[in-house]
Amino acid sequence: MVDFWPRHAELLKSAVDAASKRIYWSPYPEIPSPSAYGETAKADGEAEFKALLGKPFELGQPGKSRVGKEISPFGLELNVSYEAAPVDEVILASSKAANAWADADVEARVGVCAEILQRLNKKSFLIANAVMHTSGQAFPMAFQAGGPHAQDRGLEALAYAYAEMTRVPSEVRWEKPQGKNEPLRLDKTFRVVARGIGLVIGCATFPTWNSYPGLFASLATGNSVIVKPHPAAILPLAITVRIAREVLTEAGYDPNVVMLAADELDSPVTKALATHPEVAIIDYTGSSTFGAWIRREAAGKLVYTEEAGVNSIVVDSSPKFKAMCDNIAFSISLYSGQMCTAPQNIYVPADGIETDEGPKSFDDVASGIAAAVDKLLSDPVRAAGVLGAIQSDATLERIGDARKLGKVVRDSSPVPGPNGAPSRTMTPIILAVDAKDEQAYLAERFGPIAFIIKAATRGDSISRAAKSAKQHGAITAAIYTTDDAKLQEAEKAFAQAAVSLSVNLIGGIFVNQSAAFSDFHVTGGNPAGNASLTDTAFVANRFRVVAVRRLAA
Amino acid sequence: MVDFWPRHAELLKSAVDAASKRIYWSPYPEIPSPSAYGETAKADGEAEFKALLGKPFELGQPGKSRVGKEISPFGLELNVSYEAAPVDEVILASSKAANAWADADVEARVGVCAEILQRLNKKSFLIANAVMHTSGQAFPMAFQAGGPHAQDRGLEALAYAYAEMTRVPSEVRWEKPQGKNEPLRLDKTFRVVARGIGLVIGCATFPTWNSYPGLFASLATGNSVIVKPHPAAILPLAITVRIAREVLTEAGYDPNVVMLAADELDSPVTKALATHPEVAIIDYTGSSTFGAWIRREAAGKLVYTEEAGVNSIVVDSSPKFKAMCDNIAFSISLYSGQMCTAPQNIYVPADGIETDEGPKSFDDVASGIAAAVDKLLSDPVRAAGVLGAIQSDATLERIGDARKLGKVVRDSSPVPGPNGAPSRTMTPIILAVDAKDEQAYLAERFGPIAFIIKAATRGDSISRAAKSAKQHGAITAAIYTTDDAKLQEAEKAFAQAAVSLSVNLIGGIFVNQSAAFSDFHVTGGNPAGNASLTDTAFVANRFRVVAVRRLAA
Repeated sequence: MVDFWPRHAELLKSAVDAASKRIYWSPYPEIPSPSAYGETAKADGEAEFKALLGKPFELGQPGKSRVGKEISPFGLELNVSYEAAPVDEVILASSKAANAWADADVEARVGVCAEILQRLNKKSFLIANAVMHTSGQAFPMAFQAGGPHAQDRGLEALAYAYAEMTRVPSEVRWEKPQGKNEPLRLDKTFRVVARGIGLVIGCATFPTWNSYPGLFASLATGNSVIVKPHPAAILPLAITVRIAREVLTEAGYDPNVVMLAADELDSPVTKALATHPEVAIIDYTGSSTFGAWIRREAAGKLVYTEEAGVNSIVVDSSPKFKAMCDNIAFSISLYSGQMCTAPQNIYVPADGIETDEGPKSFDDVASGIAAAVDKLLSDPVRAAGVLGAIQSDATLERIGDARKLGKVVRDSSPVPGPNGAPSRTMTPIILAVDAKDEQAYLAERFGPIAFIIKAATRGDSISRAAKSAKQHGAITAAIYTTDDAKLQEAEKAFAQAAVSLSVNLIGGIFVNQSAAFSDFHVTGGNPAGNASLTDTAFVANRFRVVAVRRLAA
Repeated sequence: MVDFWPRHAELLKSAVDAASKRIYWSPYPEIPSPSAYGETAKADGEAEFKALLGKPFELGQPGKSRVGKEISPFGLELNVSYEAAPVDEVILASSKAANAWADADVEARVGVCAEILQRLNKKSFLIANAVMHTSGQAFPMAFQAGGPHAQDRGLEALAYAYAEMTRVPSEVRWEKPQGKNEPLRLDKTFRVVARGIGLVIGCATFPTWNSYPGLFASLATGNSVIVKPHPAAILPLAITVRIAREVLTEAGYDPNVVMLAADELDSPVTKALATHPEVAIIDYTGSSTFGAWIRREAAGKLVYTEEAGVNSIVVDSSPKFKAMCDNIAFSISLYSGQMCTAPQNIYVPADGIETDEGPKSFDDVASGIAAAVDKLLSDPVRAAGVLGAIQSDATLERIGDARKLGKVVRDSSPVPGPNGAPSRTMTPIILAVDAKDEQAYLAERFGPIAFIIKAATRGDSISRAAKSAKQHGAITAAIYTTDDAKLQEAEKAFAQAAVSLSVNLIGGIFVNQSAAFSDFHVTGGNPAGNASLTDTAFVANRFRVVAVRRLAA
């Protein structure tokens, strides 16, 4: 029975400090280099991944049947199967495991969580392969976003949970003056109590990054956790759950404190889990349709969601036209627009814009961005590295359907996969539309689909983009402008729509990027999600405080 | 346009400090003494109250019609009428007022809130009269609970809101190393944004105490607030709203940032307000039936509730039998059991208990408590002071109906009001029941109704009381025991039921009492309510944080 807290106490202190300052900080190296991860780490991770293929994946959970039909967007059939049990059996095992976990000291639990994260970090290459061959992310992104950046987000949630649980003193002497009489004196103790079972519902595009915050927030606060992966992206979370169960066992807890509930598309278990009375907390990433179902049917439970949104860029004027086009081109191309932070709608005034290269018409801006995409993706190897693969057939079909939504400025075309292998990879389609064609662009067209929208005026761009965020949700927004008055107008409009704004980004930083400990991912204030990763509100309600008070001796 | 922040900055610092330490602290004197409130304060408050009677109460809100039919439980018809407007008109005025309020600096808003609290404190005698003649509380409680203690709870919520909003830095330089290259540098600003309209739904028994936390938490975080009082207890909140509007006006804001939405029992407006799309936050105190309706129909909004519960005392053994009986007698008598913290169910083992006076049988304990109630209420003047009046006719009827629920150990009887005036005042009824008669005692019997429950064993007492809290809700629990093992068993059982536990209280401290800055009122973890007054979870989601980031120069 190992107490992992002493190994990680300093780490937690640093994490809490970084989160409160919102500075750059990470304990997990984001470069997949031998110096950071060891000379053989890359090869070991790949070998370990290959050894999992075509076999049953063992977790030691209850469950006699097997599920799992994952197929890599890069063409590989994984043929991995996972234990499955009836929902009631999973819930029962989770509830049974929960008591001792809930009774553990805060530090004991946080130590276990930090150890899980450290072991996940060591397995970053394995996880990168698993994320790549489920999400369709190219390897570099699968490593960063699926490995260290996901671990950062998990640690950030852990830090918030730790800070929040230890904010209340464990004991206090309460002494109330009574005039000339002796004061009233009570000795009070406060203890953190868990809520029940936390259910974490993963998505297919960022199976680890989007799941770790809810997983570690619920786990640290004393709840047992059932991880329900997307049927197309089970493996990354199965590896995660296996590591969690190993650490739990070493620390002396029932491994069923963390369980996997895998399923297949044609026999889903999510609804039964989400509505089960023992499930008290739900973290969900996915479509707004199912998100609305959960918010409605699980009313009364704690529900944290990240749902669909429509992200906008307002091109108002540009101090560096070429760099702007390059930056936007990368943002819409990266992982084929399948990031929840990817821009879809680019607003440009009908009269065109002022730039460092002189005035540019609406068409100039559209063709400038299209040309920048062409250039970025001109080399097939680089194109495959930037685009990755299309995660689902539905997204592939969506690209085809998009052609009729506007004037095609740049068409989508297939790209061979890494090393020229067959792959579900397509370049972005860019469409020009008029601002009044709202039915075309005011819905999430998930995938490599972007619209250049002709707005009546510069102010019209801002107000339409902000209104779109408020009504349809948005996780990111960006503006390019040289005009301070317009910038202030935009800051105010996007703040009212509760979406964060990136200003004049060029070079190596993109609107898509969201850094743990500094950027709040999703504000929780518009339809793109009801919670933020990670802030106090994300953790504070996952436990409650119960007191005992008695007369002081 | 007054900036009230400088006047209250020190107060907020002290309040944040007290809340984090959970020590005794209060800036508002709880004794209605001339030295604290001025020589003429008592007479002035009563005169001011009387001057309001029989007249329209002016707030300067939109609304051409008038509502209000309050009748004092002590017999007085208030004949005060309040402005009323269609719900859409109220919402429109509130929304219109909200923008400038949401845009104000955190400190500006917190300063306004603290000033409102200070002026409420100065009007404590007026408010005490208004609370007394709506809730039926005797004057001393109406003063303390309706005045300074309610103000404490408001300040506590304000302190949490202030601490939470200022936890995120307003700006940061983010600097990410890039190996040998220049670091990536972003300048980020963070701003607090409001959610929408906060609706505060008051109750008839503690119109101010239960409303102030939600009112000040929503207001401080930038939301406009509509206060919907119980139709039987409008005046205390109308006075509160008037003071808030005065301060808002002096500070340069639209007074409609805080509005009153009074109604009458036969034409209620609560459902229309609660389901209005502009209402983002609801604070509700009241029945579980209507609470369930709100939680269901307002799903997706932020809903904070305090609902019904069944509070228990476990009598396991007693080191001071007489003092225990006196303490319990006071707890069930105070304000006629109409406190949400009042005990209803007293579990006693069938075999009796060990005490400092030797063994006591089940019947000895029951008659000991009954005798202590008799003694406490033997003097009619003191009885009136302890009991106050029954707030509603429904509670009065409930006492009569209770007679058939068990063996009457002590019957209820009428008591004349203060100064012998006619009053709806009744002493408590105490019934003995067997633990198996769950239909009798496992529901909230709101009012001066207590059950002595014969449990099979000492362990049975604890497990039944804890299970009752978990299933039916409880805001308080108490145990009397000399046995450390049983105490530990109880601490664990009640913690799992998420109810705080008071141990062996005697003398001047009672299970009913809940002190701001130290006791978390309601845990939020059982059916008696989904939120706690006041903790971080109560405030953290009432605002969101929006960032702007740009490349550093």
